[in-house]
Amino acid sequence: MEKRIKIALLQMSSSKDIEENEKKAVSLIKKATKKGAKIVCTQELFKTEYFPQVERWSYFRYAEKINENSKSIKKYQKLAKELNVVLILSLFEKRADGIYHNTAVVIDADGRYLGKYRKMHIPDDPHFYEKFYFTPGDLGYKVFDTKYGKIGVLICWDQWFPEAARLTAMKGAKIIFYPTAIGWLPSEKEKYGKSQYNAWETIQRSHAVANGIYVASVNRVGFEESPDKDEGIEFWGKSFISNPYGEIIKQASSKREEIVLADVDLSVIDEIRTSWPFFRDRRIDSYKELQKRWLEDE
Amino acid sequence: MEKRIKIALLQMSSSKDIEENEKKAVSLIKKATKKGAKIVCTQELFKTEYFPQVERWSYFRYAEKINENSKSIKKYQKLAKELNVVLILSLFEKRADGIYHNTAVVIDADGRYLGKYRKMHIPDDPHFYEKFYFTPGDLGYKVFDTKYGKIGVLICWDQWFPEAARLTAMKGAKIIFYPTAIGWLPSEKEKYGKSQYNAWETIQRSHAVANGIYVASVNRVGFEESPDKDEGIEFWGKSFISNPYGEIIKQASSKREEIVLADVDLSVIDEIRTSWPFFRDRRIDSYKELQKRWLEDE
Repeated sequence: MEKRIKIALLQMSSSKDIEENEKKAVSLIKKATKKGAKIVCTQELFKTEYFPQVERWSYFRYAEKINENSKSIKKYQKLAKELNVVLILSLFEKRADGIYHNTAVVIDADGRYLGKYRKMHIPDDPHFYEKFYFTPGDLGYKVFDTKYGKIGVLICWDQWFPEAARLTAMKGAKIIFYPTAIGWLPSEKEKYGKSQYNAWETIQRSHAVANGIYVASVNRVGFEESPDKDEGIEFWGKSFISNPYGEIIKQASSKREEIVLADVDLSVIDEIRTSWPFFRDRRIDSYKELQKRWLEDE
Repeated sequence: MEKRIKIALLQMSSSKDIEENEKKAVSLIKKATKKGAKIVCTQELFKTEYFPQVERWSYFRYAEKINENSKSIKKYQKLAKELNVVLILSLFEKRADGIYHNTAVVIDADGRYLGKYRKMHIPDDPHFYEKFYFTPGDLGYKVFDTKYGKIGVLICWDQWFPEAARLTAMKGAKIIFYPTAIGWLPSEKEKYGKSQYNAWETIQRSHAVANGIYVASVNRVGFEESPDKDEGIEFWGKSFISNPYGEIIKQASSKREEIVLADVDLSVIDEIRTSWPFFRDRRIDSYKELQKRWLEDE
C-alpha cells in the first residue's frame, strides 16, 4: 500500500531584517502548501542572518522563548492549522538567562505543538562559532508523530554523525530533516570547495542507506558578509531529498532561493529494510565502546 | 610531513579450483609489490568460489585452521617477508568442530602474524546464505599495527554498519580494508542494480568522511553460476579506494580482474580531522542506546 506524501524544503537567503525573513518564510510556506506539500521545513535559523560568523554578545538578543505558549510559536501553530501542514522551524532558543540552544520545533497539521529538538552536536571553527552561542542539546534524539508520518529532526553539524541518524531512525523516524547553514569561506573555496560539498552530500545520503529512510537537507543560500569584514560565507544551497537508497530525488541549485518539493513513499521502507536487513543484523552486543572518546592504546 | 604509501587491492574472479585461485593471488601479490605496493589485500574468500550461494554441508570442507602455526598461513608469512609487504588475506576459518568463521588475517611486512579479524555482521538473503556457514565474530573490532601504519579490516556485510567503521577508526586505523563479495542477481539487476551499486559505494565513502580515514574496498568480479542452477551472482567488481573526503581516488572496472593501486597519504588525516573535528564533538554521553535493537514505542 503506497503511502505517498509531498514534502517541501525552503531554501532561502536571510537578511539582517528579521521581519522580512519571516515574511518571506511564511510566503514560501503558503506557496509550498499550494503545490501540495504536507510537511514543510525551514533552513537553520531562518529568521536571522547566520550570526555565529562572529562572537558577539549583542546577538543573543535574537533568541526567543520557545514553548506552546510563546507568541512566536502560536503564530505558526495558527498557520499550520489553516494550511493543514506540518511545520518544522529552526529557531534560536532562549531557555534561561545564560542558557541558549539551537532548536527546531515541530507543529502538527492541526496546529498542535509536538515538541522540540535541541541540536546535540555543536560545531566551532572559523566563521562557525556556535559553541559560543549554543548550549549542547539535552533532550536526546527525537521523533515526532505527525499527521503524515513519524519524522525526526537533526540540525546541521549533527549531519556528520552517523550515531545521531541511527538513534533517530531507531525511534521510528521515516524521514530525517536537517535544517542547515553550510557554505564556503571564499579563501578556501577553490582548494577545498568541491571536496567539502561532496563529503556533505555523501554523509547524508549514507544515513538514508544505513537506516532505510528518507533524508531531507535544507540549506541556506547566498553570500553573507562577516560583521568583522573578513571573509564571509557563501552558503551553497543545494538542498536535497534522498530516497532510502541514498539517491537524490530532488535538489535545489547553488544560487537561488527555491522550494524543493518531492513525493516520498513511506511504504517502501519496510521493503527496503527486509531486502537489506541492517537492523536485523546490527551487532548490538559489540557497540558499547561507541560511548568512548577514543580507543587507541596510548 | 608526508607519509605516503602505495596500497593494492586484488580484484579477482575465483573458480572452483582452489589451487588455481591461490596461484593467481600469489602472482597478483608479486605483481602488485613489483609496482611498489606496501599493503596488499585480497577480495573476500579469494581461495574459493562464493560457496554461500547455497547451503551445503559439503562446503565446510573448504575451511582451514588459522593460526601462526598453520601451514597455509606460514606460506604467506614467507611470501610477505620475501616481498617486504603487508598481506591481508580473507579466509574461511575452521575454529573447532561445528564453529566456522569468515576471517581475515594480517601478516606484517617482516612475515610476522599480526592476528585476525572475524566478520562481525553476517548477512543472509537469497544466494548469500552466510548465516549457515559463519558464526558471528567474537573478537570485536581490530586494528593491526603494521610496518606501514595502523590498519583495520572489516568484511563485506560489515560495510553497511557505521558502528563497525567508527569503532575500528577509534582503535587507530588509518585505512580500513573491506574484502568483499557483492554482486547482482540477474533477475534483480535491471530494476535494482544501479541503486544497489550506488548505495554500496555511498555507504563506504561515508565511513571515510565520518572518520577521516581512507577506505579500501576489494570486490570479486565475474559471474558465478549457482550450484542449484538457479540464477547465480554477477559480482560487480568496482573495487575502489576512497580518500578521507569520501572521494574515490582509484577504481577498478566492473568486468576485469585488476590490481587497484593507489598512493595514500596518512599525514593528511590529522589535518582533515582538525578542520572537521567530528571526533572532538561526538556526543558520547548520548550514544548508549545504540546498544538497543529498536527504540520505537510499541
